[in-house]
Amino acid sequence: MNTNSKGVEILSIGTELLLGNIINTNAQWISEQLSQLGLNHFRQSTVGDNCDRITKVIQEISKRSNLLITTGGLGPTPDDLTTQAIAKSFNVSLFERPHLWDEIKQKLPNSKLQDDSSSLRKQCFFPKNALIINNPRGTAPGMIWEPIKGFTILTFPGVPSEMKTMWEETAFGFIKTKFSDNYSFFSNTLKFAGIGESSVAEEIKDLLNFKNPTVAPYANLGEVKLRITARAKNEGEAKNIIKPVKEKLKKKFSKFIFGEDNDTLPSVLIKELTKRNQTIVFAESCTGGLLSSSLTSISGSSQVFKGSIVSYSNELKNSLLNISEEKLAKYGAVSEEVCEAMAINVKKKLGADWAISISGIAGPNGGSQDKPVGMVYISISGPNNHITNLKKLFGSSRSRFEIQTLSVNLCLNSIRLILLSNSK
Amino acid sequence: MNTNSKGVEILSIGTELLLGNIINTNAQWISEQLSQLGLNHFRQSTVGDNCDRITKVIQEISKRSNLLITTGGLGPTPDDLTTQAIAKSFNVSLFERPHLWDEIKQKLPNSKLQDDSSSLRKQCFFPKNALIINNPRGTAPGMIWEPIKGFTILTFPGVPSEMKTMWEETAFGFIKTKFSDNYSFFSNTLKFAGIGESSVAEEIKDLLNFKNPTVAPYANLGEVKLRITARAKNEGEAKNIIKPVKEKLKKKFSKFIFGEDNDTLPSVLIKELTKRNQTIVFAESCTGGLLSSSLTSISGSSQVFKGSIVSYSNELKNSLLNISEEKLAKYGAVSEEVCEAMAINVKKKLGADWAISISGIAGPNGGSQDKPVGMVYISISGPNNHITNLKKLFGSSRSRFEIQTLSVNLCLNSIRLILLSNSK
Repeated sequence: MNTNSKGVEILSIGTELLLGNIINTNAQWISEQLSQLGLNHFRQSTVGDNCDRITKVIQEISKRSNLLITTGGLGPTPDDLTTQAIAKSFNVSLFERPHLWDEIKQKLPNSKLQDDSSSLRKQCFFPKNALIINNPRGTAPGMIWEPIKGFTILTFPGVPSEMKTMWEETAFGFIKTKFSDNYSFFSNTLKFAGIGESSVAEEIKDLLNFKNPTVAPYANLGEVKLRITARAKNEGEAKNIIKPVKEKLKKKFSKFIFGEDNDTLPSVLIKELTKRNQTIVFAESCTGGLLSSSLTSISGSSQVFKGSIVSYSNELKNSLLNISEEKLAKYGAVSEEVCEAMAINVKKKLGADWAISISGIAGPNGGSQDKPVGMVYISISGPNNHITNLKKLFGSSRSRFEIQTLSVNLCLNSIRLILLSNSK
Repeated sequence: MNTNSKGVEILSIGTELLLGNIINTNAQWISEQLSQLGLNHFRQSTVGDNCDRITKVIQEISKRSNLLITTGGLGPTPDDLTTQAIAKSFNVSLFERPHLWDEIKQKLPNSKLQDDSSSLRKQCFFPKNALIINNPRGTAPGMIWEPIKGFTILTFPGVPSEMKTMWEETAFGFIKTKFSDNYSFFSNTLKFAGIGESSVAEEIKDLLNFKNPTVAPYANLGEVKLRITARAKNEGEAKNIIKPVKEKLKKKFSKFIFGEDNDTLPSVLIKELTKRNQTIVFAESCTGGLLSSSLTSISGSSQVFKGSIVSYSNELKNSLLNISEEKLAKYGAVSEEVCEAMAINVKKKLGADWAISISGIAGPNGGSQDKPVGMVYISISGPNNHITNLKKLFGSSRSRFEIQTLSVNLCLNSIRLILLSNSK
């Protein structure tokens, strides 16, 4: 086993990062992975597509670290320079691996690109003793190379989906075996809905100072998480360290916690309805299909989700959902009366155990004094035809994207709470 | 005026960045600002809340750059160490600015925090000759300090809204006056659909070596972009430099280019249909609402989008879209016959000028020998009731998310091409 005493560094390569064209999500994702592996990670750098500058920073890093992860610069274009710059840093040459060119050609649909003079051929050149990291999702392979004793480099493309697959299939196991000491970090994340980050943090001030496990709150749009992280020799020991804290939190926050780790509000709903052998349909107006696609993004949703009517225009609210023109004229499309009728009628028409309808003003235009941007009505109809009506006003500073996303979350959390109270 | 010959660097400070808890959006935002100012920006670094490591990296940067922008570590807690570490790097002491403490106290709602022993008081200590950057949105001020000749440091808090306001109100003007050489960068991005990054790059090898303007390709899932960037004294001059290259690209790639800059496939479709005063509806199966929500995510979509039927189950394909049980049994839901009928029927039922239907296997389960995961049928019906049927097989390595997203892109690009040929 190699040592990780001097730490791991991440080097992100790409002029588009220095120009601010893209956000460096790769560095965040890899950092999270390194944390999980319990590795010392003290520093990250970003440089552009410039051979001399890449070489210089790699030489610096080789003097102060044990392991370097690079992203970017593995593609076929002339400004993809990572492998060359790494080789130059240690004064070695690159050699073609003919079998890689055969593999790449098989991946290409375009016969022109398969020509032996294709620029893609560049991606087959590596230092002599480098191991190859296969790229199942793209053409540019990466490498694992130890140019000098005690310093190893792993290279990845900049495309996040390619990098992640290569990391998971090859790099993670390699790094865990070679660099991880016997201690690792294990995390368990509790996920919250219907409560804000500051309210959660305020309630658990004491826990935030814990050393093992640590407890850290995170917030995203409409999503609050508490990550409990234990440092331990194995997963079993970690679970024992995490358990009492987790139980305390579950007791304190009870139904505000909707799930753990990879759970999402849609996945929890699908799981719950599958268990009950019940189905659901939607009638969407202001969310325009987002509620439906949040469910259908998950494999297995066809077990419970039958379909929905996206009635964006009033005309379709009338013709597809049988909302009378009188009702639409009297109350307006964004009203409790219309929303309730949408839920009742879509449930009847599409034939399901549950129906959710939603109508609101996503903005930035279309608001009025009475019905400002951010006003949303939700109706939920269940197996016993009991109706739950909700009205919510999202803040005026919210964007269209935020209002739509938060509305979908509100729908999903509201039906979760109804299902929860029904099961009692 | 100071020189920027050695370039600007960004140093992001915060252990949460190294743990992967947050994405470094500050570095991207500042990079974009530096590009606009036309400054040389060669490198970015990230370190944790550790005084020795911050000091070391600042000393390194002071030797190779003219200007350093730091974010993070200005708050009141013990792990906020930026100002101390900067002072230590150049062996100077910090002194309290009493007027800053008065200002901070005025900002505090809580009398407890206003106590003279409050931890917030730490935020009033700066090197003797540093200029203060006011923080209108928070309590932690930043500074502008030239510790050694030819090297200036600007510090900002890590909270993005505070950093951005301080940048816009104070830093931008200071940097423009002191470091900018009157030249700025201006960019224009061309967006491609229906063609891969390597095919685009292959065709424009010569352009990739241009110095002014530079031409750089970027790719995301189903999206290829070429960014043309000119260095010029003003926007008019930049446009003149960009124009001939842009025209050459437009001629070469013609209909593969769907738009520029902030255009997206949905926004282009909405614009085109609005111009024609035409409407559109969808019948979605495997994309489960994603096609609809791609349109409704854009303000103004209600001008052209009437609604859609998400017929996820075969039952609803029958009851809502009048696809006969015989047809469903004979051809299967994922077939040209059913997809075509979905388009024809949804157009008739919902009453629009255009209809798109989509049926496929998004996976990861549900595939068969005949109809593997990734097989997608699309039908488009136009005002003259002419039908265009498409069949596509996305690669077997594609995830559910990718198949759904690429299917939506294919729908949007296909109707764009039909509209394009109709307008001739």
